[in-house]
Amino acid sequence: MTDGDPRLDLLRSRIRDVPDFPKPGILFKDITPLVGDGPAFQAAVDLLAESCAGYRFDRIVAIESRGFVFGGALAARLGLPMAMVRKPGKLPYRRDSTSYALEYGEGTLELHVESVRRGERCLILDDVLATGGTARAAATLAEGQGGRVEGYAFVIELDFLAGRGKLADKPVFALLHY
Amino acid sequence: MTDGDPRLDLLRSRIRDVPDFPKPGILFKDITPLVGDGPAFQAAVDLLAESCAGYRFDRIVAIESRGFVFGGALAARLGLPMAMVRKPGKLPYRRDSTSYALEYGEGTLELHVESVRRGERCLILDDVLATGGTARAAATLAEGQGGRVEGYAFVIELDFLAGRGKLADKPVFALLHY
Repeated sequence: MTDGDPRLDLLRSRIRDVPDFPKPGILFKDITPLVGDGPAFQAAVDLLAESCAGYRFDRIVAIESRGFVFGGALAARLGLPMAMVRKPGKLPYRRDSTSYALEYGEGTLELHVESVRRGERCLILDDVLATGGTARAAATLAEGQGGRVEGYAFVIELDFLAGRGKLADKPVFALLHY
Repeated sequence: MTDGDPRLDLLRSRIRDVPDFPKPGILFKDITPLVGDGPAFQAAVDLLAESCAGYRFDRIVAIESRGFVFGGALAARLGLPMAMVRKPGKLPYRRDSTSYALEYGEGTLELHVESVRRGERCLILDDVLATGGTARAAATLAEGQGGRVEGYAFVIELDFLAGRGKLADKPVFALLHY
């Protein structure tokens, strides 16, 4: 993938700007039109898979809920298992929990115990990289179970929020930049 | 796929029973160990794709949040677009809404406007078929936008709740039965 890849133009044309969501003053990048377009969704999954080529990941750690769409697709494409990081109250079994600051307030994320095995090389995946707090919290959960976070992947990166700076020195793949 | 397919034994071994979730007396079927096991997740996606062979679907309509995992994977496998049915307050843009009775109370589901095109043949997808209320509500949303619901797919069907009876005379694919 290069910045001039024509598939990126297709993807970009399927991102919808929604002003004032979830709060006044926030311009929300809505990926539902991308998922809802067959060729664009395929291109996004292809590009995410290509980003991972040359790295070895043992597990995708995907973040609820939009991250599950791309996480499930990428896990199926790469033949990998997926761990599901969720918001509080959603996971039925014993779980680990972590709290963190996010773009619009504070959040908590949870992960079932024994979702990541010791030493597994994990790719953290979400739809959007904003401040990096959510992705970093997911990494904390995976690391707490003995996983090694070896990369991060996003469909969209909001460059002006500089979230990448929170993600240590691991590779950060993002298809679209704003 | 037949009932004796050995892949179904693998899948079944990765379903975790969680008593008293989300309410006392409910035995919850937890699919996170299945998604968290590479071969089992691949087998589930393969079996869902094989279930669809011989039918023509234009779009997967997946239900938040666990449905997104399988929906994303199946959409990527079949080269189809996916519409995202979500709970209230999650979708940022203009949306249609429907309320319905569910196993543990009452719910509302939403779908962005213009998520399904007129005449599209839709497959409704979720992780579990319980009473059928949620799947039927998703179908109502898709039909309200002009879609034709031509089938339903689930990883698990709770036979004793007879939810299949709510899904008209369309094909209902379910990998595991309890």
